[in-house]
Amino acid sequence: MALESRLKKMSKAARELRLSQSEIRNKVLITVSELLISEQNKILSANIKDLKALSHNTTPAFRDRLMLNSARIQQMAKSLRLVAALTDPLAGERENRVLKNGLILKKVRSPLGVIFMIFESRPNVAIEAFSMGFKSGNVMILKGGKESQKTVSVLFSLLKKSLVKAEFSTDVLWGITNSDRKIVTTLLKQKKYIDVVVPRGGEALINYVVKNSLIPIIKNDRGLCHIYVHADADIEMAVKILVNAKTQRPAVCNSMETILVHQKVAQILLPKVFEAMRSYDVNWFADKKTRAILKGRKSIKPANEKNFNTEYLDQIVNCKVVSSLEEAIEHIEKHGSRHSECIITSSASSAKKFQTQVDAAVVYWNASTRFTDGFEFGLGGELGISTQKLHVRGPVGVAALTIERWVVDGTGQIR
Amino acid sequence: MALESRLKKMSKAARELRLSQSEIRNKVLITVSELLISEQNKILSANIKDLKALSHNTTPAFRDRLMLNSARIQQMAKSLRLVAALTDPLAGERENRVLKNGLILKKVRSPLGVIFMIFESRPNVAIEAFSMGFKSGNVMILKGGKESQKTVSVLFSLLKKSLVKAEFSTDVLWGITNSDRKIVTTLLKQKKYIDVVVPRGGEALINYVVKNSLIPIIKNDRGLCHIYVHADADIEMAVKILVNAKTQRPAVCNSMETILVHQKVAQILLPKVFEAMRSYDVNWFADKKTRAILKGRKSIKPANEKNFNTEYLDQIVNCKVVSSLEEAIEHIEKHGSRHSECIITSSASSAKKFQTQVDAAVVYWNASTRFTDGFEFGLGGELGISTQKLHVRGPVGVAALTIERWVVDGTGQIR
Repeated sequence: MALESRLKKMSKAARELRLSQSEIRNKVLITVSELLISEQNKILSANIKDLKALSHNTTPAFRDRLMLNSARIQQMAKSLRLVAALTDPLAGERENRVLKNGLILKKVRSPLGVIFMIFESRPNVAIEAFSMGFKSGNVMILKGGKESQKTVSVLFSLLKKSLVKAEFSTDVLWGITNSDRKIVTTLLKQKKYIDVVVPRGGEALINYVVKNSLIPIIKNDRGLCHIYVHADADIEMAVKILVNAKTQRPAVCNSMETILVHQKVAQILLPKVFEAMRSYDVNWFADKKTRAILKGRKSIKPANEKNFNTEYLDQIVNCKVVSSLEEAIEHIEKHGSRHSECIITSSASSAKKFQTQVDAAVVYWNASTRFTDGFEFGLGGELGISTQKLHVRGPVGVAALTIERWVVDGTGQIR
Repeated sequence: MALESRLKKMSKAARELRLSQSEIRNKVLITVSELLISEQNKILSANIKDLKALSHNTTPAFRDRLMLNSARIQQMAKSLRLVAALTDPLAGERENRVLKNGLILKKVRSPLGVIFMIFESRPNVAIEAFSMGFKSGNVMILKGGKESQKTVSVLFSLLKKSLVKAEFSTDVLWGITNSDRKIVTTLLKQKKYIDVVVPRGGEALINYVVKNSLIPIIKNDRGLCHIYVHADADIEMAVKILVNAKTQRPAVCNSMETILVHQKVAQILLPKVFEAMRSYDVNWFADKKTRAILKGRKSIKPANEKNFNTEYLDQIVNCKVVSSLEEAIEHIEKHGSRHSECIITSSASSAKKFQTQVDAAVVYWNASTRFTDGFEFGLGGELGISTQKLHVRGPVGVAALTIERWVVDGTGQIR
């Protein structure tokens, strides 16, 4: 079977990679960053072909995600150099303990092994995913969407070229350009050869993978993020954060979908927020109390349960007036996706209460939810934002692509 | 729907538990340990009923796993006190970093949430699993096998009694005594309410869960463990370790299934090992070279590929003579289950090579593989031995039932 023989070769390459020197892995990443620049015309012309193949009713946001230009390629090259400069996530022991019987227990880090990542639209994910996986010693199987096929093919060829230059086995990367979904279904069953699956894309993709995979998953689900403005909030700060979290880049998972505001400050806060968001053409879905405060304003519709459960990924916001911190927490518990949540307050004890009681991957006090990001957190990038509670929560950085195992030294101990 | 309303109550209880004080959780565990002793007659008489209900062709090993006696109950009570005495796995921050923009990033630990554990035969797993889950702030759904139903029912009632005494919501535990498998299938789809599934049992159970679960899994798969005796090994130590790892408790996953021995010491080592294992009636499957060395001995059969892939869980061993450390590593790579592997050598550099190149949850130098165990490693017990590479490898202790999340403090930062 051609597939099995390929996967066997990848397992072998995984061992080679696991035992490789950090400097050599970093050198490959630097070579990739150089090739991105020197061969950027090749990348851009493939990208133009992909863009031209899009159907006429493609949304501008989708088109934008697919599009590469010189600045974006420069950014990709820069990210690669940043990842190369990161500390080796496989180095060092975390713990060293001697048991009563004299056994010495050490915890060391290993790569996860073979990671199968499925992504959609943005072609630069191919480079980002390879760099983070390779940095942490993992063999990568990468499959992009049909729409970015030509661009991604060129990127894969540059990655292979860099591997060959460093005399690395090219089996450490399998870039799948075949747009057939059958290959995904088949690979999701290969638990003997693949250690982790990382789906990154829309809900349909994630659900398909969750339903069909026999392999453990790092899931990057939706972000339904709230910002709660407490009774004692600094109003100016609140307006600034709310506007940023909603409008700066609404199509990403760490943008805010719902404003919760304490009734004591709703009267003064909401008109200011509404005004500030007007220049971004934000549409509002709001509860009765909000609508009473904002009466007369256009583009405000009544919010129902469905609104509060919707990740708009657009210039649309929900708003609800609450009578207490507890009510805000209850609302988040009910509607949140455990991604990023925020409280704006001048009270440290209210912040502490919120940050302890709200169970999300990232819980903010007085800052925009937009910071939930591997680069912003200093993790050197991200393979996605995990919304599950196993292995990693929040931005998936290089350390999250490794796992601790035990090394035990004895002098003849038996039980 | 009755199920959904129950799961909703458990989600609510999960929040209460997550925010509870460590001392109160510990008090509950102490109460359980006291009740185990004061009500042990009730437990034992239920256990006798379970034992009587077994069919006549049940193996002695299976009967033994199900059986409780006063000593075993004492041991359960003692384990509970040990878990109560462990440091709170939810306490403390692991990292505290200030970003350039002034954001303060902290990593804190939270429980996984709601854990659904399915186990077979040994009834004490109910107590062990509850204690470790509750200690780390997790709500537990526990389902034992049909064969232990009466014993486990009594244990569940003692757990509930202890919760009531501490004025804890009894929704933090759902002990399922219904032997219908349908409930398992249904629960494996409840990804909204259940955070992690832990199957612990035979291969059929594990495969069923992997195939049907929409929820992340901590898998406790089989242990196909090897011990490699290098050319420079201390022969006496090697004999002692090999005999212990095979015979002391062959039915558990950390026992050894295959001996690999360097050709330089095979001639002197193998007759000694064979003799020492004779008193345990160990049956051998061996390669040609081993058979030549042990010629004339009874109960030695030729080993084939299937033997080298079999976890016997019995007094049966495979043996193979290899010509190098590399050949031993290749064999382990091919046949091992990435559980526990061992090298016996007097050379630190050979040990280092083996421990680096062999990718298993635990890799030993000069010690029995039988030590792979949560108690032995000082983790206060174990929910199983993970053979997957996501979240945790090896013994699953209380820390592995928690996960880090981020708390971020700002002063108005936006992007």
